[in-house]
Amino acid sequence: MSKVVVDMAASLDGYTAGPNQSLEKPFGDDAFTSLTDWMTQAAEENKDELDAITDAGAFVMGRNMFGPGRGAWDRTWRGWWGEDPPYHAPVFVLTHHERPAEKMAGGTTFHFVTGGIDEALRLAREAAGDRNVSVAGGAATVNQFLAAGLVDELRLHVTPVLLGRGERLFTGTARTELTQVSARRTSLVTHLRYEVRRA
Amino acid sequence: MSKVVVDMAASLDGYTAGPNQSLEKPFGDDAFTSLTDWMTQAAEENKDELDAITDAGAFVMGRNMFGPGRGAWDRTWRGWWGEDPPYHAPVFVLTHHERPAEKMAGGTTFHFVTGGIDEALRLAREAAGDRNVSVAGGAATVNQFLAAGLVDELRLHVTPVLLGRGERLFTGTARTELTQVSARRTSLVTHLRYEVRRA
Repeated sequence: MSKVVVDMAASLDGYTAGPNQSLEKPFGDDAFTSLTDWMTQAAEENKDELDAITDAGAFVMGRNMFGPGRGAWDRTWRGWWGEDPPYHAPVFVLTHHERPAEKMAGGTTFHFVTGGIDEALRLAREAAGDRNVSVAGGAATVNQFLAAGLVDELRLHVTPVLLGRGERLFTGTARTELTQVSARRTSLVTHLRYEVRRA
Repeated sequence: MSKVVVDMAASLDGYTAGPNQSLEKPFGDDAFTSLTDWMTQAAEENKDELDAITDAGAFVMGRNMFGPGRGAWDRTWRGWWGEDPPYHAPVFVLTHHERPAEKMAGGTTFHFVTGGIDEALRLAREAAGDRNVSVAGGAATVNQFLAAGLVDELRLHVTPVLLGRGERLFTGTARTELTQVSARRTSLVTHLRYEVRRA
């Protein structure tokens, strides 16, 4: 059965990026290494969780996670992710500005969706078939999905830092009952998994 | 060596109490059982962490954690904690309104401190001697200690719920580097311990 999963690296205080995200600083000010060291410096130790991040049949992400900026698209810019993005599946990017799909190497195609999270999820479910749909971020997008009660499983990768500012998870989310699935500490991160309980 | 430790039960989104705390609802609206079930329903399973909460030579707490209300004291009210509070040590309560100390059974004496967290910590350190000083809460008090760089160890007891509103940890705190110490999941809670890194 296809599930909607969320996979986010976050500081202990729930920030998933610092302020002032830009082309040069996709994670904003002073957050990149704190949030991603476990992925780069301890990839083998965290292999299971890293593999799971891209193990989905389709992805949904906010515009900031595709590229910086607002307003009309600069079509020469094809995203943070290089010519062979790690998704290897359709990715539905939330935006207010239409743009034709961008087919990349390795099976990743970015589709641009102007109809909000409901349309993005409908398209992603169709594309994913029996596989999971992953809400890849950022925080604002995850918060929208949580607030709408659309998430089945929440996977947080909690890094040992308080960032104090930036893009924060769990802002504007409603009360949500969870069931703990697992907690695993490695040298640089603690992986927490929860299922969202349905009434 | 005496340390300043923080021990807080919090929802996954960092709330330590719901809104509208009152005499009848010390944890505010709709938060009590979500935050405390692990203490009452699974006390044996969480015995080590529960014992550690009150294993300190002195405690500091915000006024809300002693009793509800603001303004001048109602001296007939002697706190949430009954006649034999669980602290068995001096407790320094932050307040803007002077009040003589309240000596309770079992070694707990509540002292009321009007000089803010620095004075409370100084008095608590003196009282604790070689033992730890525990900042017992609530969130506003813990946030003040974190923002001032006064915490040595942070122990969070993360319960599987998003509360979405209430008293939130890590509001107004500065960037703080941590070192993971441990993570332990039991049936109803995940215990996370961090040391605060000193430059």
